[in-house]
This record gives sequence, structure tokens and C-alpha cells, in this order.
Amino acid sequence: MENMDIIDDGTITDVTGFFAAGCHCGIKMSGKPDFCIIYTERDSTCSGVFTRNKYLAAPVAVTMEQISKGSHFRAIVVNSGIANACTGRQGYDNAKKTIELSGRYLKIDTGRILVSSTGVIGNQLPMEKVEKGVRSCSAGLSREGGHKAAEAILTTDLVKKEIAVKAASMEGSYMTVGGIAKGSGMIEPNMATMLAFIGTDVHITKELLHSALKEEIAFSFNSITVDGCESTNDMVLVMANGAGGVIIKNKDENYRTFKKLMGFVLKDLAKKIVMDAEGATKFIEIEVANAKNNIQAKKLAKSVANSNLFKAAAFGKDLNWGRINAAIGSAEGCEFEPYMVDVYLNKELIVKNGIGTDISKEKAKKIMEPEHLKFLMDFNNGKGHSVVWTSDLSLDYVKINALYRT
Amino acid sequence: MENMDIIDDGTITDVTGFFAAGCHCGIKMSGKPDFCIIYTERDSTCSGVFTRNKYLAAPVAVTMEQISKGSHFRAIVVNSGIANACTGRQGYDNAKKTIELSGRYLKIDTGRILVSSTGVIGNQLPMEKVEKGVRSCSAGLSREGGHKAAEAILTTDLVKKEIAVKAASMEGSYMTVGGIAKGSGMIEPNMATMLAFIGTDVHITKELLHSALKEEIAFSFNSITVDGCESTNDMVLVMANGAGGVIIKNKDENYRTFKKLMGFVLKDLAKKIVMDAEGATKFIEIEVANAKNNIQAKKLAKSVANSNLFKAAAFGKDLNWGRINAAIGSAEGCEFEPYMVDVYLNKELIVKNGIGTDISKEKAKKIMEPEHLKFLMDFNNGKGHSVVWTSDLSLDYVKINALYRT
Repeated sequence: MENMDIIDDGTITDVTGFFAAGCHCGIKMSGKPDFCIIYTERDSTCSGVFTRNKYLAAPVAVTMEQISKGSHFRAIVVNSGIANACTGRQGYDNAKKTIELSGRYLKIDTGRILVSSTGVIGNQLPMEKVEKGVRSCSAGLSREGGHKAAEAILTTDLVKKEIAVKAASMEGSYMTVGGIAKGSGMIEPNMATMLAFIGTDVHITKELLHSALKEEIAFSFNSITVDGCESTNDMVLVMANGAGGVIIKNKDENYRTFKKLMGFVLKDLAKKIVMDAEGATKFIEIEVANAKNNIQAKKLAKSVANSNLFKAAAFGKDLNWGRINAAIGSAEGCEFEPYMVDVYLNKELIVKNGIGTDISKEKAKKIMEPEHLKFLMDFNNGKGHSVVWTSDLSLDYVKINALYRT
Repeated sequence: MENMDIIDDGTITDVTGFFAAGCHCGIKMSGKPDFCIIYTERDSTCSGVFTRNKYLAAPVAVTMEQISKGSHFRAIVVNSGIANACTGRQGYDNAKKTIELSGRYLKIDTGRILVSSTGVIGNQLPMEKVEKGVRSCSAGLSREGGHKAAEAILTTDLVKKEIAVKAASMEGSYMTVGGIAKGSGMIEPNMATMLAFIGTDVHITKELLHSALKEEIAFSFNSITVDGCESTNDMVLVMANGAGGVIIKNKDENYRTFKKLMGFVLKDLAKKIVMDAEGATKFIEIEVANAKNNIQAKKLAKSVANSNLFKAAAFGKDLNWGRINAAIGSAEGCEFEPYMVDVYLNKELIVKNGIGTDISKEKAKKIMEPEHLKFLMDFNNGKGHSVVWTSDLSLDYVKINALYRT
């Protein structure tokens, strides 16, 4: 994007009017930050996408309710360490109670507050600690707090995930989009959770905000996979506070610029999650070109990205084109001519018309060396296109997920 | 099954009228057996089920053609070491050539011969070695050859998989079903293949034979999963030679007895494949009871069986009920009330109404100790039922599949 600037060391609080704070309130035994609040002084429109897992966690249920009932929001309150999932009625009450406490300390209407959690499944939130977290973060909100918030939402992640970008509107004033995220495949000791919180200073209707989020999610958070498992707590929230002066009322040039900024932020955060995937030694991009249509393109890309055989071969630096064939060949409901498919790895032709090209063992090993592997599969069969990101299946992945509690 | 006898050390040649031979013809570098022929003197009806992978191997295509054109068969010719998959026109011609050679040495019509392969993808069959194999096996057919054939179809498998059972018909004469199989998750260096060859001495129409096979496959080979990957070479063939004297013309008592025998053989071989899965340390049975219907029951069972998180936890002996919830909660198109689900592990109640029961850490570790883990999930939601077998995700699985060629 031509006129976009990536803000140095940017985070959600680089967006005009956003404040944040993070602290350790005692939920995590490790002493690491486990609580944060993202806050804006102005009423913001808000949109979200949520896990479709039937065991959706209490905070997911409560936040969905809040968004469906309210039209404007001021704060997102997040804890890590305990997911508040599979916790029944008490879990639900605790999520509501977290909002109540936040309303009291932030002195805002409880209808304007959203809540999110990540961590261990099945445990109840320690509400005294939660209150301590709310109190401490409410008092500590700052324009630099985004970095601390990005840290406080992590669990098994190794690195913080944050970004902020800006671009000029048609009228010359700037619009900014910033965000933080967490996720690394799965979480101690239970499972994957991806969270992302996005802020922007444009003034935009709920409907247009949701439309932009939904479209861009498809090319970012819904285009990554570490192990194909959908968590109980997944949530992406975006708040638009209008503090920057750019007003978006319809799908005009400004909307398109804003959508590109949001797309960039979502994609950047999604890729950072894959790069930090548990045990990963490779970042793998799988691009499908010229498939029958976009839906089939994504299915084909995901079929490869979720193949344990393909992922283990990537870990072993084994140029195993047969496993790519096997994965796409068994993708359900995808129409293509198997002996029309070409595959490139980092621009090297490795499969021509469905059959492996003659590559020496030495060369095969060499082209599997890089940490970033980009596979391009050309189906020569239509205009369908998709890009999916994944990681390899490593010994450390199994160790982290098998031996965590032993 | 009351009146069924399992034949001691039984194999396919324990079925009246079946002969077999296995040999090393030079396809495998290891010097291990890599070629076999299964043969019967009488014209047999035959039925098969095959991989639906778009890159189906040449021998699969040729055998499907043979079955669709012919009505009676005499021999199955199998090589291991090279899969003859993704080998184009030459691969197809080589599969046809194998049949031609077999017809010449066995002195039977080429229309009565089926062919199968397993091993490396992308390599062409060395036809001189194949001829050597055909010659040697044709000359060496014997009533004890089943064991040798069971060995010759293996690749990365650690153990032979064979069985034979018999039962009395309504009239008092015996019917026998025997079989051999291979498969262990995936094959050097490319992918999984499951092969099974079944013989029986009943006299049965092609239609009834196919009906029995199709129904029983659902509860055996289509109810196992190691890594969810479908190979290019998967094939199950059954030959009925009528040498035992029992004649089955409709779905009578004899048909039902025969179907039970075949079901037992298929299930036994399928389970043996899971037990021999690459790197496996656990044999895991997942039973779903009282789901909405049978289709949803199987989806739910497979969703758990294919969850890397669940499988890695099993390897680590971690009683991780949250990962079971996450897996069933994200199974597509399955209707159930999440807080009505009970889960038992080897008869111990571990989840009650969707929430983990109070089990001490010591006890949790103890109940995850056994090599055989049986999870029973009761959805309290209908009459749907399914049983699926799988293995755990171990460090050795990754090692075998990642580091094989390095």
C-alpha cells in the first residue's frame, strides 16, 4: 500500500484516543503480567468475530451479548492464565462481575465494557485477584500502555505481537489502525487461543466496521493454521473511536484505505502468531493460484497446511512433493485435473503437471533450508486464489503439548 | 460371535482353495520380501474399495478397470517398495505389463488378474525385477504361502497383519474368511497406504459380496485414523472362490454369518494397523454413544481422533478433558447440547455434563497409564453410535516422518 506508514514500535495506543495498562494481579503463578485494560475516552463503535466452538467460554458469551445489546463501547478488559471456559453458571457470573467491577473503577456504564480471557480451561476466575487487576489497570491507563497490554495477554507465546499503521485520507488528515494479539498454537495446559484487539481513530458506522472486519478476517486470522484446532476463547475485537477526524459513511475511497490498513494489521498479527507457533522451526506460506474458485483454493491450501505428513517433512527439510499431492488429492469437493498442477517452492519448479521434477538430493536439501518456505501451487483450472500460513510439525511441538504437565 | 472359531496363526491361505507365495525380487534395497501373489484355482467373484484420492496410483486405476470389466478373478499380484503413483502413462503401462507377465507365468487369462502396489511415490517400477518376482512367486505358490505374502506387502510396518476365522453354515458345513493387511500410518518416504486382501470360500454373487464388504468397511477400515491422510494406493479386495460348498444367494442366515465373519476379519486387520502405527505408544478407542445420528457420531469421534492436541496429550499421559471438549465443540454440523455430554475413560467418569469431574493429579496420571485407552462419550442426545480407533502423537511419529531421509 503506497501511502501507508508503519509506525515504529507501534501498538494499539499509538491510535489517537486509546489508553491501556497491564499488570500482574496473581492469576498466573509465574508472576508475569496477566491482566490488562484497553480504554478510550470517546464512545466507540465496535465489531467482533468469535469462535464457533460449542464450548465457547463465558467471556465470549458475555461479550457477544454486550455487542448485540449496545451500540457504543469504551473498554476491553482481559485476563490471561485462566480461560474461564467450561465453568458453567459461575463462570458466566464471574465474567459479568468482571464487567461490573470495571464499570465501577473506570466510572463508565457497564453496557460499554467488553471482556475476554485466555488460559487454562475448567478453572474458575479468582475474583479477588481480578478486582486487584481491574483496580490497578484502571489507575494506570496511559498512552504507552499498549506494550504492557500486549504482554499481559500472552500465555505460552514467546514474543509480543503488536503493530500500528497510518495513512492519509482523501482530505489529508490521517487515519490510524493499531492492534495487539496473542496465540501460539495452543495454551497451557489445554488448547489454542487466538485473541486480537484492534483500535482505530476513524469515525465509522457499526455496519461498515463489521463489513471491513469480516472481509479482512478471511485473509488473515482465518487463513492461518497451526494444528487445525479451534479454541473455546478465540475473539477478534475492533473499536473505532472517531478521535482522528476522518469520517467514513459509505464505501468510498476513505473506506477502502481504512479497510486496507485494517487488513494489513490483521494479516501482520496473524503471521506473527504463526511465526511464534509452538515448537515451530519454519514459517510456511501456501499460495494456491488458478483453482476453480476462491473457496476451493482455500480448501486446497488448508488441506496441505493441515497435513501432519507435509508439516513433519518440512521440519525434516525433506522436499516431499508426494505428500503435497496426497493432501490436495484428498481435499473434499475440490475439482481439478491432477496432472495439470504445477508446484513451486521459493520460485523453484518442484512439480510439473502433477509429477515431481528431477531435482538432485543435494539441491532438494538446499531449497528446503530457508526458515521461510513459500509454496505456490498453480492448478491451471480457473481464477480461484488463496494464501494460507502455517508452521512445521516439530519434535518440540509434541514435547510442549504432551509433556507439559509431567 | 458365538459359533465363530479363530484359526490358530491363521492367514489368507487357511481359506480352502487359496494359495500364495512371497519373495524378494529386488525392488526394496533392504533385501526384505517385496513381491507376492495370492491365487485361487477356481474363478472367484470379487469386490473392492479404493482410495478416493485424485492422485490414485496406476495399479489402483488398473484394478478398478479390471473389476468393472470382468466378473471372475483368479489372482492378486502385489509389490511393495514402489507405489507406482504419480508415474503418468509409463506407470499405467507398467501396471498393465505386470498383469500381462502374471497371466503368462500363471497361465491364466489376464482379465482375471488384479494388481496392487505400495511404497515410494514418483518412482517407476523396475520391470525386470517385477518379472523376476512374478516368475518366482508363480512357481512357489503353496497352501502355507499366506504368511510369506503377509510379509511381502509390508513397508515401514513392524509386524505382519493376518487372521482367519470360520463358522458353520445353517447346513453344518463351514465357511472361512481369511486376510492379510499392511499399513502403519505412512510409508517411506512419502505417505500412508493401507492394503488388505481377503479371501473366502463361500459361493456368493458379486452384488452380495460388495454389499457385505461395503457395510463392514464402515465399521473397520473407515473407522481408523492415524493422521487423517488418505493415500494414493489404499485398496481392500475380497475374493470369494466358492470352494467351501456354502452357497449364498440372498440375505439369509448364511449371508449374515458370512458378513459377521468378514466384519470380524476387517476389524481385526484395521485394529492391527492402528496398533502398529508409526511411533505409537497408545491404542485409543473412541466410542460415541447417543449422538443425534450415526453420521454425526462418527464425525464427533473422528474430530477427537484427529486432534493433534488430544493425541499429544495421550502420549504425555495427560488427562486433558478440555481438549476433548475443544475437539467435539468445533466438529462441523454436529448438533448437541455441550453441557449434556458425559465422558468416561476406561469406565472412570472424567467429564460430567460437559465439565471435568474432580480427579486428583495422582489419579489422573494413573488412569492415563494403560497402553489401551477407551474413551466413551455419551451425548445424551439421540441414538447415534460410532467407534473409531486411533493412536497417540508421539515424538517418534515426528522423527519417523521428518527425519527419515536426513
